[in-house]
Amino acid sequence: MMAESAAGSKRIVREGIAQGGIIHGGDLDAARAAFPGAPEPWLDLSTGINPWPCPLPPIPAEAWARLPGRAAETALREAAAAFYGAPSPDHVLAAGGSQALILVLPRMRPLGTVAVLGPTYAEHAAGWAAAGHRVAGANSLDACDADVVVVVNPNNPDGRIVPSETLLALAERQAARGGWLVVDEAFAEVAPACSVASAAGRPGLVVLRSFGKFFGLAGVRLGFLLGEPALLRDARAAVGPWAVSGPGLAVATAALSDSAWIAATRHRLADAAARFDARLAAAGLRVAGGTSLFRLVDDPRAPGLYDALGRAGVLVRRFDYRPEWLRMGLPADEAAEERVKVAIETFTNRWILRSK
Amino acid sequence: MMAESAAGSKRIVREGIAQGGIIHGGDLDAARAAFPGAPEPWLDLSTGINPWPCPLPPIPAEAWARLPGRAAETALREAAAAFYGAPSPDHVLAAGGSQALILVLPRMRPLGTVAVLGPTYAEHAAGWAAAGHRVAGANSLDACDADVVVVVNPNNPDGRIVPSETLLALAERQAARGGWLVVDEAFAEVAPACSVASAAGRPGLVVLRSFGKFFGLAGVRLGFLLGEPALLRDARAAVGPWAVSGPGLAVATAALSDSAWIAATRHRLADAAARFDARLAAAGLRVAGGTSLFRLVDDPRAPGLYDALGRAGVLVRRFDYRPEWLRMGLPADEAAEERVKVAIETFTNRWILRSK
Repeated sequence: MMAESAAGSKRIVREGIAQGGIIHGGDLDAARAAFPGAPEPWLDLSTGINPWPCPLPPIPAEAWARLPGRAAETALREAAAAFYGAPSPDHVLAAGGSQALILVLPRMRPLGTVAVLGPTYAEHAAGWAAAGHRVAGANSLDACDADVVVVVNPNNPDGRIVPSETLLALAERQAARGGWLVVDEAFAEVAPACSVASAAGRPGLVVLRSFGKFFGLAGVRLGFLLGEPALLRDARAAVGPWAVSGPGLAVATAALSDSAWIAATRHRLADAAARFDARLAAAGLRVAGGTSLFRLVDDPRAPGLYDALGRAGVLVRRFDYRPEWLRMGLPADEAAEERVKVAIETFTNRWILRSK
Repeated sequence: MMAESAAGSKRIVREGIAQGGIIHGGDLDAARAAFPGAPEPWLDLSTGINPWPCPLPPIPAEAWARLPGRAAETALREAAAAFYGAPSPDHVLAAGGSQALILVLPRMRPLGTVAVLGPTYAEHAAGWAAAGHRVAGANSLDACDADVVVVVNPNNPDGRIVPSETLLALAERQAARGGWLVVDEAFAEVAPACSVASAAGRPGLVVLRSFGKFFGLAGVRLGFLLGEPALLRDARAAVGPWAVSGPGLAVATAALSDSAWIAATRHRLADAAARFDARLAAAGLRVAGGTSLFRLVDDPRAPGLYDALGRAGVLVRRFDYRPEWLRMGLPADEAAEERVKVAIETFTNRWILRSK
């Protein structure tokens, strides 16, 4: 089950992060370098970020000028606890992105074994391995016999959902062995039934939430750790004071409290995902999974299609470990949908001609 | 020389941060709780943050919505390298506050001995101790025989300046023993002659810079690590991707490049500091040191004066280890100056009456 040694993966991970080896979505600068003739502006569908951002509230000059105060941070944790359904604001810690928390968690436990239910977001395995833990990927929860089990739910990139009852039972088993179940709910806003955030007070259960994706404000850099207050105290020490920017506190507190926008956006994203699926199907592509924030295409022509989209100035997400997969975020408007459709059809027509 | 055991200080530090035990400036919420009858709005002189913020540039909607891109991060490092005089942008790493970097550095070395030239900003000793190093305070550089020496220059809170030649010689000695000299230049914008940023490529020399203080934008959360590119690669892995918010990148790149504002602000702060010193002297208080971003009052009546200022809604910074010290940031306008003067005079008159 252990795919690589801790030392080996540590080296790879370090070099990977330093030299850009872990590929992430959203890197238009790299896309421009790879496809220098592509038309501007680029259409970036390589992330799972909502293309219709939550409106920004007025930001007081103080939020920029002063160190973020405790009252603002408490207000944010209160809004987050209410929205996520956490037991209390004391079960919520805010940091400068869930990525920062992914790097903090591995340093809060003695070195041990970690099973990551995969394939999934690469930073989890990378973070635990870099800290010296023995990390293995696992294809099913039954194969996850480890001190720490990491589940992204819904999963990125295939949208696989583990029912909350299954996770809560697993969290109990993990707690019994002194272990953790880490559930990364980065996309759970669009699948709220699967969230275990309301159980964040139970021993052994650690939940990560991401602000930027559903709210369409990834530039804010804000993520949350939900768990037992004692565990959050350790995490807070590792994260340090003033981890979230003042403007970020103001923007996110308003957004997390805007229940009308939240409800409307869930509908809007679900409608847009269904419409995009129909477009992709009409272009001959099979959608194998996803969430309403991103769709996963499964097609043997994916590598060629990736290049064709790139030449047309459309960036999607590919996966070294699954060349037949392409993940696509939602186009923001009809013009964007049309641009994707034309690029796909140009490619598939050429492909059909070549195949004849 | 070693003041406390690593394990003991680790416990204290963890609890301290979690429960607010390390006192920081800028905590108006705590001040309101301590002085419930004080007039609003509070006048916060408890930090060394410039009260006249650099004007905000227009912030593109993209900066909020998208993950911060490489081009924006490179532009920031270029502007920072030019302003600080670092050898190149590859000698600069940006993070979400110099505080984040203070917590990262101790995890980049094997456990060893650390000497912090003190008294100074408490987070340095706390960060190294929390990571397990043996930390000791030192009153002079001659007493700093340790694997890592930390110098805040100009020092907070007394403004003591160690000449750059002394630091460069020390860095060379530290490098020869495989050690580091960490120079925290959080306030060096107002004392540029003492900066060793231009030597940041030399082995063993690590320089920290803080964006928010001089530019008056502490809410942005941005700090820089200047050092050898190989060392920065390790630090970058520990900090993780997208460490600075998109709006922060936009604001700081503009501010660091605004040489007219920078030059005018150096003058403005120096003038304001001189005027404030005269006011304090007229009120009978001795200014023992500081920089043009904060002044340090040394007076046996400091504890009573702190309370009197608090009751008048003026927050200044006191120090557990030096009860006779009060650090004061600059009042932003004449009304603020007058408010401080009246509060001090009310207190000193009462003090004189009581002493009779």
